[in-house]
Amino acid sequence: MRLDETTMSLVRLALAEDLAGFGDVTSALTIDIASRSAAAIVTREEAVVSGLDLAAAVVTEVDAEIAFERLADDGQGVGSNVAVARLVGPSRSILSAERTMLNLFTGLCGVATQARRFARAVEGTGVTVVDTRKTTPGLRLWEKKAVRDGGCGNHRFGLFDLVMIKDNHVAAGGGVAATVTRARRGAPFPMKVEVEVSNEQGLLEALAAGADIVMFDNVGTVELARLVSVARSLRPEIVLEASGGVTLESVRAIAECGVDIISTSALTTGALPVDLGLDFE
Amino acid sequence: MRLDETTMSLVRLALAEDLAGFGDVTSALTIDIASRSAAAIVTREEAVVSGLDLAAAVVTEVDAEIAFERLADDGQGVGSNVAVARLVGPSRSILSAERTMLNLFTGLCGVATQARRFARAVEGTGVTVVDTRKTTPGLRLWEKKAVRDGGCGNHRFGLFDLVMIKDNHVAAGGGVAATVTRARRGAPFPMKVEVEVSNEQGLLEALAAGADIVMFDNVGTVELARLVSVARSLRPEIVLEASGGVTLESVRAIAECGVDIISTSALTTGALPVDLGLDFE
Amino acid sequence: MRLDETTMSLVRLALAEDLAGFGDVTSALTIDIASRSAAAIVTREEAVVSGLDLAAAVVTEVDAEIAFERLADDGQGVGSNVAVARLVGPSRSILSAERTMLNLFTGLCGVATQARRFARAVEGTGVTVVDTRKTTPGLRLWEKKAVRDGGCGNHRFGLFDLVMIKDNHVAAGGGVAATVTRARRGAPFPMKVEVEVSNEQGLLEALAAGADIVMFDNVGTVELARLVSVARSLRPEIVLEASGGVTLESVRAIAECGVDIISTSALTTGALPVDLGLDFE
Amino acid sequence: MRLDETTMSLVRLALAEDLAGFGDVTSALTIDIASRSAAAIVTREEAVVSGLDLAAAVVTEVDAEIAFERLADDGQGVGSNVAVARLVGPSRSILSAERTMLNLFTGLCGVATQARRFARAVEGTGVTVVDTRKTTPGLRLWEKKAVRDGGCGNHRFGLFDLVMIKDNHVAAGGGVAATVTRARRGAPFPMKVEVEVSNEQGLLEALAAGADIVMFDNVGTVELARLVSVARSLRPEIVLEASGGVTLESVRAIAECGVDIISTSALTTGALPVDLGLDFE
Amino acid sequence: MRLDETTMSLVRLALAEDLAGFGDVTSALTIDIASRSAAAIVTREEAVVSGLDLAAAVVTEVDAEIAFERLADDGQGVGSNVAVARLVGPSRSILSAERTMLNLFTGLCGVATQARRFARAVEGTGVTVVDTRKTTPGLRLWEKKAVRDGGCGNHRFGLFDLVMIKDNHVAAGGGVAATVTRARRGAPFPMKVEVEVSNEQGLLEALAAGADIVMFDNVGTVELARLVSVARSLRPEIVLEASGGVTLESVRAIAECGVDIISTSALTTGALPVDLGLDFE
Amino acid sequence: MRLDETTMSLVRLALAEDLAGFGDVTSALTIDIASRSAAAIVTREEAVVSGLDLAAAVVTEVDAEIAFERLADDGQGVGSNVAVARLVGPSRSILSAERTMLNLFTGLCGVATQARRFARAVEGTGVTVVDTRKTTPGLRLWEKKAVRDGGCGNHRFGLFDLVMIKDNHVAAGGGVAATVTRARRGAPFPMKVEVEVSNEQGLLEALAAGADIVMFDNVGTVELARLVSVARSLRPEIVLEASGGVTLESVRAIAECGVDIISTSALTTGALPVDLGLDFE
Repeated sequence: MRLDETTMSLVRLALAEDLAGFGDVTSALTIDIASRSAAAIVTREEAVVSGLDLAAAVVTEVDAEIAFERLADDGQGVGSNVAVARLVGPSRSILSAERTMLNLFTGLCGVATQARRFARAVEGTGVTVVDTRKTTPGLRLWEKKAVRDGGCGNHRFGLFDLVMIKDNHVAAGGGVAATVTRARRGAPFPMKVEVEVSNEQGLLEALAAGADIVMFDNVGTVELARLVSVARSLRPEIVLEASGGVTLESVRAIAECGVDIISTSALTTGALPVDLGLDFE
Repeated sequence: MRLDETTMSLVRLALAEDLAGFGDVTSALTIDIASRSAAAIVTREEAVVSGLDLAAAVVTEVDAEIAFERLADDGQGVGSNVAVARLVGPSRSILSAERTMLNLFTGLCGVATQARRFARAVEGTGVTVVDTRKTTPGLRLWEKKAVRDGGCGNHRFGLFDLVMIKDNHVAAGGGVAATVTRARRGAPFPMKVEVEVSNEQGLLEALAAGADIVMFDNVGTVELARLVSVARSLRPEIVLEASGGVTLESVRAIAECGVDIISTSALTTGALPVDLGLDFE
Repeated sequence: MRLDETTMSLVRLALAEDLAGFGDVTSALTIDIASRSAAAIVTREEAVVSGLDLAAAVVTEVDAEIAFERLADDGQGVGSNVAVARLVGPSRSILSAERTMLNLFTGLCGVATQARRFARAVEGTGVTVVDTRKTTPGLRLWEKKAVRDGGCGNHRFGLFDLVMIKDNHVAAGGGVAATVTRARRGAPFPMKVEVEVSNEQGLLEALAAGADIVMFDNVGTVELARLVSVARSLRPEIVLEASGGVTLESVRAIAECGVDIISTSALTTGALPVDLGLDFE
Repeated sequence: MRLDETTMSLVRLALAEDLAGFGDVTSALTIDIASRSAAAIVTREEAVVSGLDLAAAVVTEVDAEIAFERLADDGQGVGSNVAVARLVGPSRSILSAERTMLNLFTGLCGVATQARRFARAVEGTGVTVVDTRKTTPGLRLWEKKAVRDGGCGNHRFGLFDLVMIKDNHVAAGGGVAATVTRARRGAPFPMKVEVEVSNEQGLLEALAAGADIVMFDNVGTVELARLVSVARSLRPEIVLEASGGVTLESVRAIAECGVDIISTSALTTGALPVDLGLDFE
Repeated sequence: MRLDETTMSLVRLALAEDLAGFGDVTSALTIDIASRSAAAIVTREEAVVSGLDLAAAVVTEVDAEIAFERLADDGQGVGSNVAVARLVGPSRSILSAERTMLNLFTGLCGVATQARRFARAVEGTGVTVVDTRKTTPGLRLWEKKAVRDGGCGNHRFGLFDLVMIKDNHVAAGGGVAATVTRARRGAPFPMKVEVEVSNEQGLLEALAAGADIVMFDNVGTVELARLVSVARSLRPEIVLEASGGVTLESVRAIAECGVDIISTSALTTGALPVDLGLDFE
Repeated sequence: MRLDETTMSLVRLALAEDLAGFGDVTSALTIDIASRSAAAIVTREEAVVSGLDLAAAVVTEVDAEIAFERLADDGQGVGSNVAVARLVGPSRSILSAERTMLNLFTGLCGVATQARRFARAVEGTGVTVVDTRKTTPGLRLWEKKAVRDGGCGNHRFGLFDLVMIKDNHVAAGGGVAATVTRARRGAPFPMKVEVEVSNEQGLLEALAAGADIVMFDNVGTVELARLVSVARSLRPEIVLEASGGVTLESVRAIAECGVDIISTSALTTGALPVDLGLDFE
């Protein structure tokens, strides 16, 4: 498996932080150069696994002689004290790779685990909880995959794959109707147009101007439900998204307002790393 | 101010994630190309500022015509709703830079803010709380600076600037005495030698073998206090570090055991981003 | 103006091809180091200008002391023997930059000039002629801009900003209905779904399965017109695209079949460079 | 086979254009991850093959599990509907690589095919038709190889491997005699000196000053033949080159004037890509 | 074996210098493409071997089909006319790699050979001769390894792994006592503090302020011996270093003054390359 | 002045070696952040200056606020204790840049100084002493310039700008006559052909086959003079080069044998760095 250049660049940056100068002096001084070990990556708490390919890539980048054996799959939920992968190879190299590998892998498992919680919170509502662009610099591809591994969905990848007109664009561009109309006319035809609104006036303008997706930002649930039914009555096929103030506690109530999509950065920046350890056999 | 290549590489990776393909299509379609704006980075909660240079670098990388004016200093504590910097320049470019800049800056402020809490928790004990190598890939330099901006200290930067013999090295290398002795003999003379111990036997071996620093991992406070006094009686100048199970609640009790240093990943991976917004004037 | 890293990487690759080893030996040996010149980029045939920013970037990369003065705008049509830009600076540096700059600039003007021809050919039909992914490696962003500068439009940028189900996907994925249905269900919600069909059966499946865009590949104009009216009668808002066998001669007839979009690689790989010269004053 | 860094950088730039963001979403949504295919690169018109190594490198860069089997050799002329290579491997990866691979490969075959036409046009005259520095940025090495694969020859690679005094150098440097003399004296001794002349006066100065090669730019065939015989009578071993206004129609008449070398950008920028398709079995 | 990115970047820079443009034209024109050879790297004088991994990496980077067989080990002393490695593979590739490989390898053997001389000169004194930061740009890791291969030791790697207060810092920072005190207080706790002194006053301040290492710069041996005994009487465990005016002739006398460490750039910048040749079998 | 990418890559590699991890900790801890200094680069021995642009580039890369004032020119001979450049700017940054800048600059001055000695040794003979490809990896461009600054000349830059048939090519390619003939026929016409010979038989073959340059390797002066006159009698304009066993002592005698060119690695790998210091005012 070969990862994309962006990912490999990040892996190399991360390894270079840890292995500058004389490199892993401790392992060189205390571990015999011929020593070989086996070590397992073990959960210290419940987790959804994500990022095995990236973990493997770090390890292989440090030393291609380390074998990385998968004992679980991305997207799999596991209990505490479960081995999800096993490394076999030169002891020094395994120790040199350990921290950089875990820094990446524990974060991705954290995102997937958090996504699993949100997916469960809206189970049965037909709503998809999706991520945002609040991701760790250089790791967006992996964190968006972790979100899917956890059972949630993805919003746009970046600024380039959706016209998304936010409050600042509306303000600078002369209102909802004007900006949506301009976007519809000027956008590359394969691209959808989404607009953020905060009240009925904005909603009506958005629907009339032909937005593909309407996003309600920070609208209370009572008003949200009302606006959703207004929208559905005018354009039944419109895609409706809610955002703002989304927590594990509030998400189901928002989902029950009838939107299609709920977006929240809680999936990524709100997720703490999962506790994983590297246990030598 | 010119940032190092590692940092600029990460900035470019992060920007490339957001600005691939057709780039910021929304701003291109809704904002006049000649439009210029001023916008402030404003706190939405109490924070310690950190990373202004990095925020400025992102903005300048997107468009060198954006002026980045500092309204606060790294290390400064500010209340909610305070403008810490101001951007003036082409509206499109400011919007294109916003998310990548905030993704980096909110994280660093989060680390500094967390560090301030820990620094206060041990105030007056003479103990320094320090970070670990559990940092965001590519951002170690900045997160370690944020830790200092918050009032805590730094442990080693990477694997290369301290011989640090951990449990796995001890196990593979034949015990505390053997590994410390080998390290003392073989290490480049400018480098200190630290060893992790978990009981009195290990401590005595470490002291006898000439370790510069001894780290107690996950030792309860009663036993910790006892081991500290044993160590001090034998080698008064020895540097003693505690690690494991460190929280904002537990840190002062640990500090009062008499160690010099308490290390914890709670400063970095335990820190949530500070909520910052970009408000157009 | 700061260009993206991809562009600058290509510029550096191109310059490195021309300036390896001892560099521009001829200028060093024949031109006085203190000599300064002014030279104009002059058309040798009718052209639509495109890529002035890129031409300027090459020149500045070679020597930041060369001033690059624009005498025309991207998108502007000019006759033969018109100066579109002017370089003033060290004579040696201007000569060193000349070929690499012209190699890039003449190609982009060629694309824009070709696009202008196609745009005129369909004038008044309401149809947009768009490009494909058949572009010069490393120059896609610039060639797609040149297409717009010439008055045509853009198809998707790459594999990542549209689900586009082509014949191979249909064959491997179990037919039009099955692949479109799967794509609709699995695609990130901000992404449209396009499918290629070659007959009425495929069209009906595509419409029923909810495709956003349907593309007819290599369908004769009589049949094409019939399929368009079938499609419009069933889903009036559907976006319809024709592709295959598109030339300057055939494009208007295709447009008059009632599609919205005609895509053709003739805009890019079919465009010869415009003849431009660098005339010293 | 390992390609040079410049080539691999270009391959990665080109792939990154196509595979940013979520990557090849269509294949991921419509093709089973376990599906494997075989597909042939098939000519749709007569062609001279060139660039098989580069095509293979693109495919391997996308997925090292794709086997690339050569069914022809660089330099081989083939008819229409001939398979020149065969790819076997994961279906998704083959589809993801297809466009970038073909964009590079069709262009190189186009150059080789064009070169074959020119080589045939001068067959038997003893003249070599050679390329110029008008090449696709980043692909000079490959296009110059394609020129040789087609049966023509190469001029200098870049600015660094020949002193080539053109009209601008002559004008700025004080005439043919002065510039050639200065170049002969100052050039690294392993380098030849060529000078462009447009009349007999220039030719005589060039010959007297010791130029190794004289290039006639845009001289009509009658005058060209006369100048060639003047040159041969004075310095029989002198290498003579003609350039300017070279087409498939005019090239033989120019060759018959007695020059050694005819240089023309028609070999590269004048060559359209060969039509190749990827046919799944 | 996989080398770090810094090393591979340097290898690629070096190869690119030699293999730009048309590459190794001579081998392409004179050696059959199918020819395979075996060639040995042979000493032309006595040497200590160092850098076999780097030599192998260059060769493999040029052509992975060349097998690189080690006939000696790094650190091994060999006589003249001894084969230390053997290359088997495509003749052209071996010739293309030869010069770049030897440029790197002969330099490292030169450093190791020089280090062996210094190590022998102080044999039995208990003193370690160490290197400085005067190393070839991009090759510090390898030259510091060569120093160890020769039997000497390493000083700090760079500016980052030791606080080393030199005369300029002392002058700018307010004297020895002030700078050492500030450093001790502010340095990351895992880092040692060294200070340069030139007389007894400086020494006493350094010892009192708690320096871990004291370096005497350019102090004559009589005075040096006296200062060493002053230092030992006050802080027996202090590490003492001498520097300045160190030659193969003077080093033993300096060592006998009782210091622990003697640092000298003679190990690196003073070492000429060892004469090695590539002999084809 | 903007340096080429190869050079800047090397500068960044070199700086990264010195400034990893926490960077220049000593300056940060002992020098006030607001402190500004002036410091001169001063010779400690006689020298020919070379590389001022590179020295300036290092300094500017560390901190663009440091002004680099030239007090001498490349190629200028200066005595001991002469200031050749002056740095004014932030004290910390000057100290951080010092070692990397001097490592590069002292080496280049060493090459220029050595070249000056060789140039003087052959003064009046009309012979040019030139360098070889034995240069420091990544620095070939600069060392070849230093050779010229010292008054000597350059051989080819790399493997790509001259066909140079050495003993191994002759052996593998079937003798002098065969290899030269093949090279003459196959080489790009702008490239010269040189061949190494060791006796009269080889010389006669080389002359007959049309070599542009003949190189005598390790031929004693008596025989060399004889072979030179043989060559001149047959082809007066032939360029003759001697190589092997060239020292400052032997070079004049070799020159007096009548060759045009003497090549020797003593100009580069035989040159020790010039002793330069950075003196703060």
